[in-house]
Amino acid sequence: MELIDGKKISGQIKEEIAREVEQIKKDGGKTPHLVAVLVGNDAASETYVSHKEKACNKVGMDSQVVRLEAGISEEELLKKVYELNNDEQVDGFIVQLPLPDHIDEQKVIEAIDPKKDVDGFHPINMGRMVIGLPAYLSATPAGIMELLKRYNIETEGKNCVVLGRSNIVGKPVANLMLQKAYPGNTTVTVCHSRTKNLESYTRQADILIVAMGKMEFVTADMVKDGAVIIDVGIHRIKSDKTKSGWKLKGDVKFDEVKEKASYITPVPGGVGPMTIVSLLRNTIAASQKRIYG
Amino acid sequence: MELIDGKKISGQIKEEIAREVEQIKKDGGKTPHLVAVLVGNDAASETYVSHKEKACNKVGMDSQVVRLEAGISEEELLKKVYELNNDEQVDGFIVQLPLPDHIDEQKVIEAIDPKKDVDGFHPINMGRMVIGLPAYLSATPAGIMELLKRYNIETEGKNCVVLGRSNIVGKPVANLMLQKAYPGNTTVTVCHSRTKNLESYTRQADILIVAMGKMEFVTADMVKDGAVIIDVGIHRIKSDKTKSGWKLKGDVKFDEVKEKASYITPVPGGVGPMTIVSLLRNTIAASQKRIYG
Repeated sequence: MELIDGKKISGQIKEEIAREVEQIKKDGGKTPHLVAVLVGNDAASETYVSHKEKACNKVGMDSQVVRLEAGISEEELLKKVYELNNDEQVDGFIVQLPLPDHIDEQKVIEAIDPKKDVDGFHPINMGRMVIGLPAYLSATPAGIMELLKRYNIETEGKNCVVLGRSNIVGKPVANLMLQKAYPGNTTVTVCHSRTKNLESYTRQADILIVAMGKMEFVTADMVKDGAVIIDVGIHRIKSDKTKSGWKLKGDVKFDEVKEKASYITPVPGGVGPMTIVSLLRNTIAASQKRIYG
Repeated sequence: MELIDGKKISGQIKEEIAREVEQIKKDGGKTPHLVAVLVGNDAASETYVSHKEKACNKVGMDSQVVRLEAGISEEELLKKVYELNNDEQVDGFIVQLPLPDHIDEQKVIEAIDPKKDVDGFHPINMGRMVIGLPAYLSATPAGIMELLKRYNIETEGKNCVVLGRSNIVGKPVANLMLQKAYPGNTTVTVCHSRTKNLESYTRQADILIVAMGKMEFVTADMVKDGAVIIDVGIHRIKSDKTKSGWKLKGDVKFDEVKEKASYITPVPGGVGPMTIVSLLRNTIAASQKRIYG
């Protein structure tokens, strides 16, 4: 079994990005500039946004957080989005989700200029990805693809089973694994809450991507010998064995499944750390106009 | 075995649409208006466009064909597209594909206002469909969904296998069968040219949707007893038994597979006749602003 070390890989990629940003600056190019819009004071959102800001600064990009009050009207937020769409200094921006209940998230997402949609949540980026056109990929699916690539995991003709059909993980990653590309070219099956005899699918999987949101759901008896296991789940449970008082678990029962896997992502330190890297890469792509020209 | 009679169903739906259009007019609404843009004189395209025009007229819609010379520049064609985007009389329009080689098809498709994109080829309509938002569905996938619905075919929890991953059939129909909806909620597998042991998938399929473009590829031994078979293929072969001198075949070896199927679409007269109905429905939806408000 080889561990897919997302922490290590994401560190390497950050260094690569830092060098790329440095080169862009040396060549007289514009420093890539990411803006994060944060509405209200949700603690988790604060943390995510601050991580994104730090990561930007670490690789030499410009970053900025636009803080708006929780009570802001949808109209005002949309006005801010249009302003960022038109601000030539801003290469890409994200609106941190979730938004307060009185705001229509989908409307806000669709108001973002697809050319600056570095979260890849705009339907046009989803559609372009499905069709096989250049697109901003959302963070988790892009992170998974990058891990497969960095570990040179063979995908063509393999049986890939995706557990979960969310818009931000299951559906996009299934569509990516289906593309005529590497990683990709797999036969893809998507299972979900209505699937019958789930094990009959998982046991056939050469590559199993688990994004169900059920802690330690996938057990050793559900997995084929030599399978590649990608665990997207993240669950926080109390623990008296850690300093922080809690620890993280995935959707896969790591300790037993790792014995059968050829490759497996741990939680934490697997897919998680890759997401921020995807965002940084999208921001460079935006600043270099690599997707939409 | 029950035959899925697309010809009969499409006839019924045309009558329903005709009544709906009549009602819209009675209520003082605007007559739905479809425009087809035809570039050059490709014989097949001429036929398709003329069928579409006739179908519109038959159900009481306004229709119009814009004929442009094969030598038209991309710029001029795009200008025409923008003109149609802005023409309030036009509810929906299509640009008949294929376009001459010197024109970038994708560029033209993306220039169409998604609100008028009744072919459903714009990436934003593909993306919205994948996400589960209201969208114009392209003709073949929409026709397949409608046939499943009209025959009350149970889909939830079923194993659906799609053969083929084209942008206009395989990918969209797989994404539709995956949605939390009826028809939908199936466990979906997409197979394609790189799939190994194809039969091991097809033999498990409760619902088998075949869009490979290989004549009579699916034989009885590849199919499970009681499966629902949807055949999207269409191949024209010479025949001395028909007046026209040719006959149509599908991707499925109909005569033998029908013995095992619970439901099966014939070729011709299965999925084919449904496509024009999908286009008419999209045009009504456009005129009534049902998708984008």
